[in-house]
Amino acid sequence: MNQTYQAKIYVTLRPSVLDPAGTAVQKGLQQLGYTTVDRIRIGKYIELSLKAEDESMASQQVHRICDQLLANPVIETYRFDLEQLPVAVLGEGQ
Amino acid sequence: MNQTYQAKIYVTLRPSVLDPAGTAVQKGLQQLGYTTVDRIRIGKYIELSLKAEDESMASQQVHRICDQLLANPVIETYRFDLEQLPVAVLGEGQ
Repeated sequence: MNQTYQAKIYVTLRPSVLDPAGTAVQKGLQQLGYTTVDRIRIGKYIELSLKAEDESMASQQVHRICDQLLANPVIETYRFDLEQLPVAVLGEGQ
Repeated sequence: MNQTYQAKIYVTLRPSVLDPAGTAVQKGLQQLGYTTVDRIRIGKYIELSLKAEDESMASQQVHRICDQLLANPVIETYRFDLEQLPVAVLGEGQ
């Protein structure tokens, strides 16, 4: 029996990598008067659902998906949370 | 005495808004063999730190920042977590 899991994935730039978008946002915020805002980093937040036999298999699959497609391991790291979806939610989404 | 807070902000497309980037990633994953992956939504994940008198003031400020700059309220929603940073962390970042 396959279970459905929702993964919430956070992809962030490695601390050593410059974040020009973050710097631009920080300058914009300072011009708007938010002078105490600091250390902005902009990353990606991805939600997806997938089917797997158990949480361990789902986790392995999400790791592979991140490594292959969602994150660039040279400049980015990722982490994710997994949550098993009740069967009822499946019906709602269709 | 101002405290330093870190905000972790999640900006996501409203459910009614199409997500072409998410659709493209889903097609890519299916071509890679991840056929059970479904309902991909791609959003932004933003980390920033700011100074405020207390958590309530910090929360108000982050709401204003999101409304003014980080999220487009027509097509996006946001949520965030606030965490008070210990003073020692400040020193590390500089």
